[in-house]
Amino acid sequence: MSDTEVAADGNFVQSLARGLSVIRAFDADHPELTLSEVARRADITRAAARRFLLTLESLGYVRGSTGPAAGEGSGSSRAFTLTPRVLELGFSYLSSLSLPEIVQPHLETLSREVGESVSAAVFDGTDIVYIARVPTRRIMSVRITIGTRFPAFATSMGRVLLAGLPEAAAEEVLAATDLSHLTDRTLTDPAELRAELVRVRRQGWSFVDGELEPGLRSIAAPLHARDGGVVAAVNVSTSATRDSVERVREAYLGPLLQTTRAIDDDVRLL
Amino acid sequence: MSDTEVAADGNFVQSLARGLSVIRAFDADHPELTLSEVARRADITRAAARRFLLTLESLGYVRGSTGPAAGEGSGSSRAFTLTPRVLELGFSYLSSLSLPEIVQPHLETLSREVGESVSAAVFDGTDIVYIARVPTRRIMSVRITIGTRFPAFATSMGRVLLAGLPEAAAEEVLAATDLSHLTDRTLTDPAELRAELVRVRRQGWSFVDGELEPGLRSIAAPLHARDGGVVAAVNVSTSATRDSVERVREAYLGPLLQTTRAIDDDVRLL
Repeated sequence: MSDTEVAADGNFVQSLARGLSVIRAFDADHPELTLSEVARRADITRAAARRFLLTLESLGYVRGSTGPAAGEGSGSSRAFTLTPRVLELGFSYLSSLSLPEIVQPHLETLSREVGESVSAAVFDGTDIVYIARVPTRRIMSVRITIGTRFPAFATSMGRVLLAGLPEAAAEEVLAATDLSHLTDRTLTDPAELRAELVRVRRQGWSFVDGELEPGLRSIAAPLHARDGGVVAAVNVSTSATRDSVERVREAYLGPLLQTTRAIDDDVRLL
Repeated sequence: MSDTEVAADGNFVQSLARGLSVIRAFDADHPELTLSEVARRADITRAAARRFLLTLESLGYVRGSTGPAAGEGSGSSRAFTLTPRVLELGFSYLSSLSLPEIVQPHLETLSREVGESVSAAVFDGTDIVYIARVPTRRIMSVRITIGTRFPAFATSMGRVLLAGLPEAAAEEVLAATDLSHLTDRTLTDPAELRAELVRVRRQGWSFVDGELEPGLRSIAAPLHARDGGVVAAVNVSTSATRDSVERVREAYLGPLLQTTRAIDDDVRLL
């Protein structure tokens, strides 16, 4: 649904949507933005950007440099940054999930054991979203933090989560997914993907070799709710230059499955 | 500034403020809310709550249970939860900070060495805000996650951060702080607090014993930017039943200062 379509039904609060897009305009590569940059990145007018920035500033979510006020002649030279208060927004979700708290110490143990980065993710739409992570070194070209999203179909955690869905639901996700090549190796044929999901479901883990990013190898296994449903996934990721395909399975699959079993046990005890 | 005052100047976008309060209505104790509960917790009308929830739902930040739609007769029985997408909002801040990434592996090493929970926080207004944490066991009565806030004056990390401010700025923070007793032991006398900050500045670390919560002992040291300014703090926290005051200093201060020095070195190399 585009903004305009939704607006047409009279229930869509345009200014909330635009205000949130102002928050999202800031990211790792753009931690500091001027009024004009915010307007451009959030695709709104300068006047709107100014009102949203002043509102977010008075709510404590944004801080303006102590230059001239945003409304004045030279206002566009004032630089804005987000404040730590924005963490309240994302973390009202995380703190309602006990999962990251349960998972974190297990991820640390696993990362220590295998000496590689370890993460946990949940499913959202057609993406996976990271909810916990113990990084060891930088492998990916993009920085992964909690909240980072990747298309589920091309990741080991995503395939584990897809394989845990009822077949009709997995089909719906695949139908809604843009099955583009992310690398030369990305599986984009729906029939091949379906066959891979059957395999992942049967074996209880997924291995992906360079389908999301060249040289990135990752192996994932599911976490279960008390009712047996798959609720999240854990992976170990490494690079092709460091570990052969065989070694990923030999060295990491055992500790990974031990970890996911231990977490499932903790969840059952809650 | 109250909302009304700001609204009076014509720049305050009321519906953005209210929409954000709908997001904040969800927390660890209220992960799932009905329309009426959202209205009550965000202090807005049911009609407004409905529009904000539908907007957030269409933006993917909120998910409604598959009951009757929120507008219909029995709408109030439909339950809403936040989705992982809200992490985008808080994490646009975190991902713009390289500090948590630099800090995290050091916190893990320190926590392993001392066997206690270790955290890092930055300053915001009169509060500290957690930006990284390695929990070992639950000591506090409230769950601490990234984004959790505590009044700076009563915490070891807060005192380290206050001691790192220019004196006039620290005075301003103290003047704006509600210096109430959080426990019997909380230092609330401004003169005593000032004297304590002088001591913290001189010795380079802060020890707080049960001033934030009975039985909670914590020791903190500052992290510095390349220009030498204090930008964050790291602490080790433990409980009075586990560690004597002497032991906290003997066992934890050395590893803590080693850790903050190692992080400062990393920051300098960036």
